[in-house]
Amino acid sequence: MSRQLYTFFRSSTSFRLRIALAYKRLDYEPHYVSLPKMEHRVPSYRDINPQGLVPLLVEGGRSLIQSMAIIEYLDEVYPDPPLMPKDPAGRAYVRAVSQIIGCEIHPLNNVRVLKHLKAQFGADEAATNAWYEHWIAEGLSGLEGYLAREGMSGDFCYGNTVTMADICLVPQIFNARRFNCSLDAYPKLLAITDRCMTLDAFRTTEPSTQADAF
Amino acid sequence: MSRQLYTFFRSSTSFRLRIALAYKRLDYEPHYVSLPKMEHRVPSYRDINPQGLVPLLVEGGRSLIQSMAIIEYLDEVYPDPPLMPKDPAGRAYVRAVSQIIGCEIHPLNNVRVLKHLKAQFGADEAATNAWYEHWIAEGLSGLEGYLAREGMSGDFCYGNTVTMADICLVPQIFNARRFNCSLDAYPKLLAITDRCMTLDAFRTTEPSTQADAF
Repeated sequence: MSRQLYTFFRSSTSFRLRIALAYKRLDYEPHYVSLPKMEHRVPSYRDINPQGLVPLLVEGGRSLIQSMAIIEYLDEVYPDPPLMPKDPAGRAYVRAVSQIIGCEIHPLNNVRVLKHLKAQFGADEAATNAWYEHWIAEGLSGLEGYLAREGMSGDFCYGNTVTMADICLVPQIFNARRFNCSLDAYPKLLAITDRCMTLDAFRTTEPSTQADAF
Repeated sequence: MSRQLYTFFRSSTSFRLRIALAYKRLDYEPHYVSLPKMEHRVPSYRDINPQGLVPLLVEGGRSLIQSMAIIEYLDEVYPDPPLMPKDPAGRAYVRAVSQIIGCEIHPLNNVRVLKHLKAQFGADEAATNAWYEHWIAEGLSGLEGYLAREGMSGDFCYGNTVTMADICLVPQIFNARRFNCSLDAYPKLLAITDRCMTLDAFRTTEPSTQADAF
């Protein structure tokens, strides 16, 4: 197949891509990259992705990296069904929601960072959990407040249609639940997540459904 | 004036916005938000930006947050001169470069994170500098490798024209220099930075030129 996704079941950025591809009904051949086995750092993988991270989407010989960039690429090349609003203000809002998660929450809490806290500061599990929870609370409270202030959310982050914003939100909520974070303060975000999980594109791609899940 | 930028001179995401506005010759009224004085956390600021971060661009009564989202908004509303390529593959590449910086480097190294390392782990200056340098080396080596692999860079990250990618790169290099990081391993990134700094939009907006600089 000409489209190949390098993915790890628990990687929330890989989960974003799996949702986007399923939502647009785009088939792909999965390549499972085990982060615990450090398969993303071996030379053969770095040859195709010098960053040494997942996900990576290879499409028509082109290597695409960075999940939000890939989602927008897919939306531009396969516009139906859309994942971005048509107007600049709507797009700015959807990108802002996505980036609150993709630039302010996820980067601080992914496995490589938690591992580095252990390596540099000798952080034990309790300490890395506290770190995780701190940035979840900081990030999600800002996001809940942003949705309330902008008044553009409905069933989903942007009105009643799925966008990139929901695709970033749901994997982050999955991740926060895995770390047992209290999410009671974010009723809008939880309602949107619940609504998304009624849709096949989200339900059939979540971590526990994946062939590499353990 | 109807356009207002909430900025801090040393904030690299504020610097991104200053470059983009200058490049597009868009005037604005600056509002200086002192991060050391925690002016971004006071209620009057959080009322207009619940995230409590800079930059914030208020334009025609609309509050815009997240620097990369704002740059794309400006590019869509004021397309000349452009900051994004016309084709989806080019845009995917420019967004990927921007996000390598905006999602993998900057979030781990900004002031609130370094402060939190001190608060949670008692990190002293040497330890926060080591943390900073680790993520600079990790991120910039991946980025230098990505530019080499893709073969799309020229005078700038994307051929010979300024894009959002350069606007994300230059403030990150400024920041890395402030922390005395060795940058010898990234000749492409340094050459692009030098080229950018010959342009007024970059030179007239860098931190030391700002009215709030100290």
